[in-house]
Amino acid sequence: MIIMGIDPGTATTGYAFVSEDAGGDPIAVAYGVIITKPDMKMPNRLQIIYREVKRLIAEYKPKAAAIEEMFFGKNVTAAITVAQGRGVALMALADANLPIYEYKPAEVKQTIAGSGNAPKAQMQEMVKTLLNLETIPKPDDAADALAIALTAMQASRWEQLVDED
Amino acid sequence: MIIMGIDPGTATTGYAFVSEDAGGDPIAVAYGVIITKPDMKMPNRLQIIYREVKRLIAEYKPKAAAIEEMFFGKNVTAAITVAQGRGVALMALADANLPIYEYKPAEVKQTIAGSGNAPKAQMQEMVKTLLNLETIPKPDDAADALAIALTAMQASRWEQLVDED
Repeated sequence: MIIMGIDPGTATTGYAFVSEDAGGDPIAVAYGVIITKPDMKMPNRLQIIYREVKRLIAEYKPKAAAIEEMFFGKNVTAAITVAQGRGVALMALADANLPIYEYKPAEVKQTIAGSGNAPKAQMQEMVKTLLNLETIPKPDDAADALAIALTAMQASRWEQLVDED
Repeated sequence: MIIMGIDPGTATTGYAFVSEDAGGDPIAVAYGVIITKPDMKMPNRLQIIYREVKRLIAEYKPKAAAIEEMFFGKNVTAAITVAQGRGVALMALADANLPIYEYKPAEVKQTIAGSGNAPKAQMQEMVKTLLNLETIPKPDDAADALAIALTAMQASRWEQLVDED
């Protein structure tokens, strides 16, 4: 089962697709970022994000998607911008009738690195290890999207274990 | 020329279409709200907002659109939700290739009521008077959308005056 992860933004939207190999180990199917240029108007940037998310879904055919709940730092203006991008990404997922799982940043850190306060470098190292990659996945937003997708995969395994009880 | 105004949200998105009569006075062509129910999932609510904004554009064929810049009160969580709705509304406007004008709340108040601090009741009374309506337009979000559309109409008149100089 392929699970899509999204790290929302407007300049950079991270995406990732993870699955399992024959032995049940998680693997990265694809990951990267959707870039929109700052000299474009925001409505047109949102169009690009929406279309690219839809195109990626059509290409990789995930069965579920995961996205981070929005968290607030001090920059509220940036958060509005991210939320607009998150809105069109959510809509693209809904257009594909995908189940959507949302996780708080601390939940993702807890699942991937065993601590809700894990620093970024440790998270990236864990993503590399879990997916058996040769190097840390770049850019950062793609690594974040992988972590989110892996969190949903882990959660789905727990659900299966519970179902089998 | 018909101008569309949008007051973004998720539970309630206000919309309005204004134009001018033969004498050049502003008139309300249509106004109302797009409602999405809180028991629906957010991605599905965003789909409804997007589709309804597109449907309204197809019906009333505006030549331009105006929307408020987002302003922050204390409720940051609500702002994220509004921003997601604003994102899909902006995309619907861009899909129709409409020029989009954005105004700060204080700019709308200044244009409609002559003061950037005008209270809501005064704004609604001015919208009623400017559009020669018999009663104050309801609900509030529709009245806000009318005020935003009227602000863009006023701005376009100033531009024309400048062009004619």
